[in-house]
Amino acid sequence: MGKTDKAILVFQTDFTYAEGAVSSMYGVVKCVDRELEIYDGTHYIPRFDIWSASYRLYQSLPFWPTGTIYVSVVDPGVGTSRRACVAKTATGHYVVTPDNGTLTHVARHMGITEVREIDETVNRNPHTRGTSVFHGRDLFGYCAARLASGIILWEEVGPAYPVEQIVRLPLPEPRLEGGLLTGIVEIVDPNFGNAWTNIPFTMFEKAGICYGDMLHLVVRHGAELVLECNLPLVRAFGEVGSGELLAYTNELMNVSFALNQASVVERYGIGFGGDWLISFAK
Amino acid sequence: MGKTDKAILVFQTDFTYAEGAVSSMYGVVKCVDRELEIYDGTHYIPRFDIWSASYRLYQSLPFWPTGTIYVSVVDPGVGTSRRACVAKTATGHYVVTPDNGTLTHVARHMGITEVREIDETVNRNPHTRGTSVFHGRDLFGYCAARLASGIILWEEVGPAYPVEQIVRLPLPEPRLEGGLLTGIVEIVDPNFGNAWTNIPFTMFEKAGICYGDMLHLVVRHGAELVLECNLPLVRAFGEVGSGELLAYTNELMNVSFALNQASVVERYGIGFGGDWLISFAK
Amino acid sequence: MGKTDKAILVFQTDFTYAEGAVSSMYGVVKCVDRELEIYDGTHYIPRFDIWSASYRLYQSLPFWPTGTIYVSVVDPGVGTSRRACVAKTATGHYVVTPDNGTLTHVARHMGITEVREIDETVNRNPHTRGTSVFHGRDLFGYCAARLASGIILWEEVGPAYPVEQIVRLPLPEPRLEGGLLTGIVEIVDPNFGNAWTNIPFTMFEKAGICYGDMLHLVVRHGAELVLECNLPLVRAFGEVGSGELLAYTNELMNVSFALNQASVVERYGIGFGGDWLISFAK
Repeated sequence: MGKTDKAILVFQTDFTYAEGAVSSMYGVVKCVDRELEIYDGTHYIPRFDIWSASYRLYQSLPFWPTGTIYVSVVDPGVGTSRRACVAKTATGHYVVTPDNGTLTHVARHMGITEVREIDETVNRNPHTRGTSVFHGRDLFGYCAARLASGIILWEEVGPAYPVEQIVRLPLPEPRLEGGLLTGIVEIVDPNFGNAWTNIPFTMFEKAGICYGDMLHLVVRHGAELVLECNLPLVRAFGEVGSGELLAYTNELMNVSFALNQASVVERYGIGFGGDWLISFAK
Repeated sequence: MGKTDKAILVFQTDFTYAEGAVSSMYGVVKCVDRELEIYDGTHYIPRFDIWSASYRLYQSLPFWPTGTIYVSVVDPGVGTSRRACVAKTATGHYVVTPDNGTLTHVARHMGITEVREIDETVNRNPHTRGTSVFHGRDLFGYCAARLASGIILWEEVGPAYPVEQIVRLPLPEPRLEGGLLTGIVEIVDPNFGNAWTNIPFTMFEKAGICYGDMLHLVVRHGAELVLECNLPLVRAFGEVGSGELLAYTNELMNVSFALNQASVVERYGIGFGGDWLISFAK
Repeated sequence: MGKTDKAILVFQTDFTYAEGAVSSMYGVVKCVDRELEIYDGTHYIPRFDIWSASYRLYQSLPFWPTGTIYVSVVDPGVGTSRRACVAKTATGHYVVTPDNGTLTHVARHMGITEVREIDETVNRNPHTRGTSVFHGRDLFGYCAARLASGIILWEEVGPAYPVEQIVRLPLPEPRLEGGLLTGIVEIVDPNFGNAWTNIPFTMFEKAGICYGDMLHLVVRHGAELVLECNLPLVRAFGEVGSGELLAYTNELMNVSFALNQASVVERYGIGFGGDWLISFAK
């Protein structure tokens, strides 16, 4: 095979780039096959935050070429009995990850057609048997490199198991009832400070809401009221003044809310997850 | 064309690497043409800071091979009427960017010979029409990949417009008058904490100043006096003691000032831009 | 030579990615030879911290293919009389670095068979003679690219000098005496907050200690007692409760101590280096 016939490898972890872990993980890949291409997804997933790992896959993986192998290592259970797996999506992408909930969003939005448990007797770096704490380097990266390189076939990753057994975090569905749109703050943008909901713009269209409409937004953390406000649904941030509230359709086609050139997350103390409940109404 | 006949792509943004935006942007490039090479310029331009984006291009772009395509996405006006453009420099490099002032330093120091507005009907990812907030992924990265790949020729980027219409930030010129050198703190090094002026070393030579000379430095922020001191002009930091003031010729051949192994920026609260006025005299 | 016959270049520095230095350094490499592959080791070595630079080489370099050229630029003495060198390890890897102590761990753990001082008259970028502050771009990166590309042979780097002259930081050896294991906190993980000692697991085995044993740990900073506790030696973090103390064998096969899903470094204020003395006993 020529170099560009081999799958691209993309890595996301909670390792940061502060020390030598990412480098040694990539070095192992290059020892398996010098021709493999490696890209950083992100190494700044919040420590041990499986929900964020799952969301970032959903945000990024669909934009890579079919066949791309995305390695995700957010692995608080490393060395315990959680499964190490490779999942194949309905779109023909692969995810190499601990099966600890990281596949939640990919399963929901892309679909997973097959999953295999990595056979450690074959697809683990044999030189690293004495340590059980760095499966990114010793197992996930090594196995992903062998698969990308063509050294092993998909069937040789290890035994298949039922897709229904994949560990999934609870993921509430957005709803439209009587003109009220409800959902959650599914993630925040840690840089620009925007809050991303799980309600697709198409659901707003079904509710008869158009760009330019003024909306009523309520944000609750469990029982606590965090934010209640009116804000316009706009196409671009620049349609409101600097520091003003707005709702917009984000890059995944879900409606989000923000402050123009400021952080709505910091100003109102907004978090994310299944207990960050929101509603929109016209 | 073979792989290394295609232009290198370098990206700089204010996205950080904290979430999935850079990854999805790079994935789109690889979908356009698997063979393209992608490098990180920096993704840590301060949020919305067009001046810094402009300066970092000047600092980095000239060191890349002729033909390199540098994509800069610091874009507070995304989705509004600002132009999306590709500029060609006198040196044969390309910059893909919102035309919002980001080209200021490149125009001043490298020269821009042609500029074209990106034709969104052709050079925008057709799958992303419903969102207007991520032109890095949907427009700039996509168009740059098509140009690098040879899918479009330079003339097919979109219609040319006069170079004189490029948006430029006010950029004061350094001066030498009667032995007094005046300029600005043009940027600071956010890591080592050094302050970089816009006065070239050659202007010091014209003023008869040599390495080893003691200089008098005054730093004002508008009308406010921030720092007044004497410091030697040296070739290397190690020529003064740890924690001591020095002036030196930086990597762009401009004179800068610093503390050896400490941050002059933090110690004296020094910022940068057109209103950070400095003067040197022997 | 074809592209994958040329050595891989990996860079580690204390530059961060906050500004344009890394980009310009990589651009120079690509100007030397477009086909060269470049990887980030890390650019977040603590500023001027030669000890950490030395440790990160030991942590990462052995996992890269033979022939890989690792460029390390933590260089507080840039522009002074410290040597600029290329070292060849017993494993056939190369390190391009200021000879300022950065080679300490590589010399101890991998072995250095030859070292050459870079001949600046040949292997320095001729366009950069007027500045002495950015040898990463102008000397180390440029020379490494020429070596990787095959433009110069190993012998053409510059004159060899005795391996014994390489600058080494004091590096205490771990000891086992009468059932007491002594060593140092050799480094900390700045992300997960674990403390890594220099005592190999094999020395614990010699002392008759097994996984599951309870250990007594004492940590002193010079004469000051910082931590004294009992903790189990386990294979995986998940064997103890969240927030509990544990000892484990790290990815370099040395015993380390940590809190499960929390930072032992932050909780107890633990640093690293030759004066961070530790002892373990059963």
